[in-house]
Amino acid sequence: MLEKRNPIAVGEAVQRVMAYAFSAKTERVALQEAYGRFLAEDIAADQDVPAFDRSPYDGYAIRSIDSATASAEQPVTFKVVGEIGAGYTYDEMVEEQQAVRIMTGAMIPQGCDAVVMLELTQMFEIDDQAYMSIKRSFEAGTNISYKGEDVQKGAILLEKGQYINPGVVALLATFGYEQVPVVRKPIVGVIATGSELLEPNEPLQPGKIRNSNAYMIMAQIERAGATAKYFGKLSDDLDICIQAVKQALQQVDILITTGGVSVGDYDYLPAIYEAIGAEVLFNKVAMRPGSVTTVAARNGQLLFGLSGNPSACYVGFELFTRPIIRTAGHHPQPHLRREQAILGADFKKPNPFTRFVRATVFYENGQLVAVPSGFDKSSAVSSLGGANALIVLPGGSRGYEKGRQVVVLLVEDMQGSEWPWDKIEKSYKL
Amino acid sequence: MLEKRNPIAVGEAVQRVMAYAFSAKTERVALQEAYGRFLAEDIAADQDVPAFDRSPYDGYAIRSIDSATASAEQPVTFKVVGEIGAGYTYDEMVEEQQAVRIMTGAMIPQGCDAVVMLELTQMFEIDDQAYMSIKRSFEAGTNISYKGEDVQKGAILLEKGQYINPGVVALLATFGYEQVPVVRKPIVGVIATGSELLEPNEPLQPGKIRNSNAYMIMAQIERAGATAKYFGKLSDDLDICIQAVKQALQQVDILITTGGVSVGDYDYLPAIYEAIGAEVLFNKVAMRPGSVTTVAARNGQLLFGLSGNPSACYVGFELFTRPIIRTAGHHPQPHLRREQAILGADFKKPNPFTRFVRATVFYENGQLVAVPSGFDKSSAVSSLGGANALIVLPGGSRGYEKGRQVVVLLVEDMQGSEWPWDKIEKSYKL
Repeated sequence: MLEKRNPIAVGEAVQRVMAYAFSAKTERVALQEAYGRFLAEDIAADQDVPAFDRSPYDGYAIRSIDSATASAEQPVTFKVVGEIGAGYTYDEMVEEQQAVRIMTGAMIPQGCDAVVMLELTQMFEIDDQAYMSIKRSFEAGTNISYKGEDVQKGAILLEKGQYINPGVVALLATFGYEQVPVVRKPIVGVIATGSELLEPNEPLQPGKIRNSNAYMIMAQIERAGATAKYFGKLSDDLDICIQAVKQALQQVDILITTGGVSVGDYDYLPAIYEAIGAEVLFNKVAMRPGSVTTVAARNGQLLFGLSGNPSACYVGFELFTRPIIRTAGHHPQPHLRREQAILGADFKKPNPFTRFVRATVFYENGQLVAVPSGFDKSSAVSSLGGANALIVLPGGSRGYEKGRQVVVLLVEDMQGSEWPWDKIEKSYKL
Repeated sequence: MLEKRNPIAVGEAVQRVMAYAFSAKTERVALQEAYGRFLAEDIAADQDVPAFDRSPYDGYAIRSIDSATASAEQPVTFKVVGEIGAGYTYDEMVEEQQAVRIMTGAMIPQGCDAVVMLELTQMFEIDDQAYMSIKRSFEAGTNISYKGEDVQKGAILLEKGQYINPGVVALLATFGYEQVPVVRKPIVGVIATGSELLEPNEPLQPGKIRNSNAYMIMAQIERAGATAKYFGKLSDDLDICIQAVKQALQQVDILITTGGVSVGDYDYLPAIYEAIGAEVLFNKVAMRPGSVTTVAARNGQLLFGLSGNPSACYVGFELFTRPIIRTAGHHPQPHLRREQAILGADFKKPNPFTRFVRATVFYENGQLVAVPSGFDKSSAVSSLGGANALIVLPGGSRGYEKGRQVVVLLVEDMQGSEWPWDKIEKSYKL
């Protein structure tokens, strides 16, 4: 059973997976449900903003020409002929030496071409008629926000693939998108393998461990922007496994299995791929952890065979599965965001292969620092909790010292990178 | 109506709000639903990890003493008496010169104290009995992951208030938390005010604008970790408004209104606060935008009167409401994360007050750079979409030049800051 496998570079492996990228369908959801989704279409302005000439301040709308002679010594007086609250309009033409009291956001009345702020005016009444006077002149256009000044009707405001944050929600509301075209979340199936696995509700038994990978992966799937569907644990019987995988494939866009991809006697995945006629894109990657990560395709559908080791499973999903989910959502930067950081602690473990070390990144005076999350034993689930990045460490050395420049990949991030692998390989001459 | 208001410093305003902080209740959700929530209790290990001495590799479990004389010239032979897959156990005592074939993750059989990796062994059979031989000796403890090596039973793994990311989900699964104690999301009511407001499904009318703030705030509420409840738009009739606010207060933990807090003739909120007996904590803050932000309290319940101006509304929520929501969720760092950044573009607008400028932050060679999101007109909704931070610019200058060190507050972030205001005020001598 000691099959010989040829490791390929990480970038090459990602490239082979990306050849099977697909686009998700579009669905429409109510604006209130759109937060956290991804736009499935470009969004255009259905109106100018402002939609009309409006006042940015509380004050008086006037004809600027009437203010021309105003001075401290010779104030000019206006008759106040009306008042406009925001949302109301003044429908008559404003005439010579007339002014209209106007509130912030209200529409400039016909005839007026300037707004005088309230604090620059003097108010008084004569025989129940309101007047106001000013002590300086104002140019045409003073304190007017013009129609279309911020956004012109028809302009593309947001591009498809955009993550819908609160600011995007505000834009969608402004432009009347009561229903929002969002990316239908791809459905990603999860199957666990391993006779040693207990579900979280099962009592511990000698020799067995709880299945953490399936639940972790389901959260990663959700974070990436897809919906997880859990099929439970594979049987120990190969024929039953084959049927289970076939049936799962019919219900999902992508299928992930955890475990069973090593070369041990109990690792069924290679046999399953063969039985269902899936083409193995690769089954060995020049990286740690996760060297046995396997990806196969059957009728264009991807099967991710992630390692049963928790760290390897985590890393495998983020490097290989995440960009497929983000691409399905039209995201132009589907890969993990790549940044430079300073290594914040020694990492002395020698390793012949590129290593992805779970890490916590933070800023120190605006400079990104990455600290490996505890002792990076590939089985140590305990260090995963605080991790928000992976440090990429090139292989072939005796370890790395604090202070070194390293590449990090950010996992809690909506922005992403376009294609980080060339740059990563160049940084490290992989 | 030109009431005189005394502006207070931002830090002082936040402090007055935080005096009304409260803790949310706990609820239990299935592990599969826990991603994205906050832990309501400390989480302890219910078992050692590993739960038993186990093998980190595929190989053979042996008694190390039996290998003592092994060399290339004089290999030592072991009789293979059994095989253990992960999840299974070997229940007999292993005797002198016996070995057990063992898979990654399986439990070390009784009597053994070392594992020899598969690739360091030679296998052969004699009369259908399997044997293996090795060419070197192994010390006791070689390739054994000891019980409790990673985590000891009873250890606190995660503290309450922790954001539940995929790594945390893995930990919860490992330790059998099929049901997870999470923070019950506080319910935050939203009421819009303003005669000029149309809902997103209403056709445009002269002088009117669509209500974007309420939808934006609902997304901000969700991002902060609470549930939004929308009560629609307040009537123009003061008595009806008073009843509406009273009724809303009974259904929510916190109430937010947008608009109506200026000193204009149409701004009802001050009258409503008075009518319902709410104590105004402040109604003027030395900042832009959002100087009219008002917060009141009634029977310990907070009423946030955010400005009707979209930027001011956005900023007011993030500075004042978010830390109350995060504190309700036991988060030890409830405020926006404060970082140093380099100003990535000139910001030439002079201003006597501290200004919060929506911005996009990104890294350049690991250094945080902040670029103001377009022209920061306080009405310009269009610049909000890309913003992921607020640049804090101190007042009293003629503007700022590219390259200057500035303080930024990150809005798309789960980590937060403890109490940023002293440091911000110190950075800028506010």
